[in-house]
Amino acid sequence: MTRTVVESRTRTVTIGFDEPFCVIGERINPTGRKKLAAELEAGDFSTVEKDALEQVACGAMVLDINAGVVYNSNPNPNETEPPLMTRMIELVQGLVDVPLCIDSSVPAALEAGLAAAHGRPLLNSVTGEEERLEMVLPLVKKYNVPVVAISNDDTGISEDPDVRFAVARKIVERAADFGIPAHDIVVDPLVMPVGAMASAGQQVFALVRRLREELGVNTTCGASNISFGLPHRHGINAAFLPMAIGAGMTSAIMNPVRPVEMEAIRAANFLMNHDDNGYDWIKFSRVLDAVEAGTPYPEAARASAEAGGSRGGRRRRRA
Amino acid sequence: MTRTVVESRTRTVTIGFDEPFCVIGERINPTGRKKLAAELEAGDFSTVEKDALEQVACGAMVLDINAGVVYNSNPNPNETEPPLMTRMIELVQGLVDVPLCIDSSVPAALEAGLAAAHGRPLLNSVTGEEERLEMVLPLVKKYNVPVVAISNDDTGISEDPDVRFAVARKIVERAADFGIPAHDIVVDPLVMPVGAMASAGQQVFALVRRLREELGVNTTCGASNISFGLPHRHGINAAFLPMAIGAGMTSAIMNPVRPVEMEAIRAANFLMNHDDNGYDWIKFSRVLDAVEAGTPYPEAARASAEAGGSRGGRRRRRA
Repeated sequence: MTRTVVESRTRTVTIGFDEPFCVIGERINPTGRKKLAAELEAGDFSTVEKDALEQVACGAMVLDINAGVVYNSNPNPNETEPPLMTRMIELVQGLVDVPLCIDSSVPAALEAGLAAAHGRPLLNSVTGEEERLEMVLPLVKKYNVPVVAISNDDTGISEDPDVRFAVARKIVERAADFGIPAHDIVVDPLVMPVGAMASAGQQVFALVRRLREELGVNTTCGASNISFGLPHRHGINAAFLPMAIGAGMTSAIMNPVRPVEMEAIRAANFLMNHDDNGYDWIKFSRVLDAVEAGTPYPEAARASAEAGGSRGGRRRRRA
Repeated sequence: MTRTVVESRTRTVTIGFDEPFCVIGERINPTGRKKLAAELEAGDFSTVEKDALEQVACGAMVLDINAGVVYNSNPNPNETEPPLMTRMIELVQGLVDVPLCIDSSVPAALEAGLAAAHGRPLLNSVTGEEERLEMVLPLVKKYNVPVVAISNDDTGISEDPDVRFAVARKIVERAADFGIPAHDIVVDPLVMPVGAMASAGQQVFALVRRLREELGVNTTCGASNISFGLPHRHGINAAFLPMAIGAGMTSAIMNPVRPVEMEAIRAANFLMNHDDNGYDWIKFSRVLDAVEAGTPYPEAARASAEAGGSRGGRRRRRA
């Protein structure tokens, strides 16, 4: 079976067909978060700290770290991103013990992240673009880490799922040329908004099955894109995630601080027989009880995580 | 493609691989509802009327009618069920125009229902039990109606999904001997509680795919059985239904007066590309808005159905 192993200094997370769905927390990312970007420029990391702790308490098993700022004082990300990536990773590693996902379009930031991260982080991302393949795959090989492979190439993002599958296969084959095994490639088949493309859901479900059966790879996606522009997005997301899991999707990059989506994932894990004796469902049902009684979800989740000891993934702050 | 056509006097519902999921309302059933049974014995049909209108307003496309009472005054269902079935069907047909599902273990009640129902009702049910096959299939042939086929036989309900598949195949083959086509058989592969059998979800998903691919039949189930005995059952149901739909399930016998489950089904329809332009999702999202603003779900659903004119399925009361 395909197993993608991601590690922090002390914790191993396996993405795999026989594992609970891997939730990769997306919050630590200044893209589209002006307030966070301004805070980072001012050297204020309090939101990063809060996002790290909150996401892990809410069930994130891996944290994505994106340092994609455009500072007013320096608009060149090649200069600003690498040191910020290092600082954010060091900070987050000091707070929580989950593995990290190093997310950047800037080569030097990826390498800075790889140098700073403990264990075996997930690299995010390579695409089928020639320049990107030649830049990222050597890093993947040098650091022996798994990588997210996004199925677009130099021609852009195809609306044809067969083309996206072909791009994924090209990346897997090119990686093999570098000695990188398929089980270290986590393909993102690209999720289109169902409000804009009626076949978007079915495309993903069919692609995930093919990627799994024909290429033997794990998969991920930016889950919330499916509901872009629609009313009651969480309802769409909460049906999409179980359907994707049923089709074989093994991870998603998403906001775990959302009880509706996290409930859907935990129920789907149980229904996939990836939750022994319903232990996690029953534990999560107590969080839902607290939310129904009026406790905010992150607070209820934190209380449950702390009651559960080390399962919560919070690290003692280093002295 | 497999299409199971069910009809009232004026309305056609098609159960099929390319159709929205068919919700069969389960509420009109005195089994386990002592108050309703006592009302029926006293000749009070007000709950039946309410259940018919409410279920259709909430999105039921077919209504199951079960007259399974055990009266204090007469404990013999062979005597009490047939006239009650006739009366309930006549009453419900006068109120709403959705097709009906005639549900009984009593042969004379099935025949009374078939005589009373307009159009092309769904018969519920045949099993793989010899006596039942020999009793029900001639009725199915005589009245040219589709039938629910439950995958248990004289040996009971097998925990082995291969055995349940074999029972379904036996029923389909036996029906063919009577000249009944596979598209008029809607197989219930039997849903076990996931709290009692960890593989229950995966069994259903795999069985639904096999039934569809190998036998070409539509499928149904008693959906809520999956969550029996568990906390926060609606969360399990609301993940199970989209996963079952993704696997190819085409209908369920369920309580439609539940916004969480109905939201999951409408989102799944959209994601399966069975909701043109998201029309139904957007319409339903307004019901969700009203529910969030404090309106009870059946009331919000009724207001939406009435605003939508004939789509609501309510019939003018006959003078």
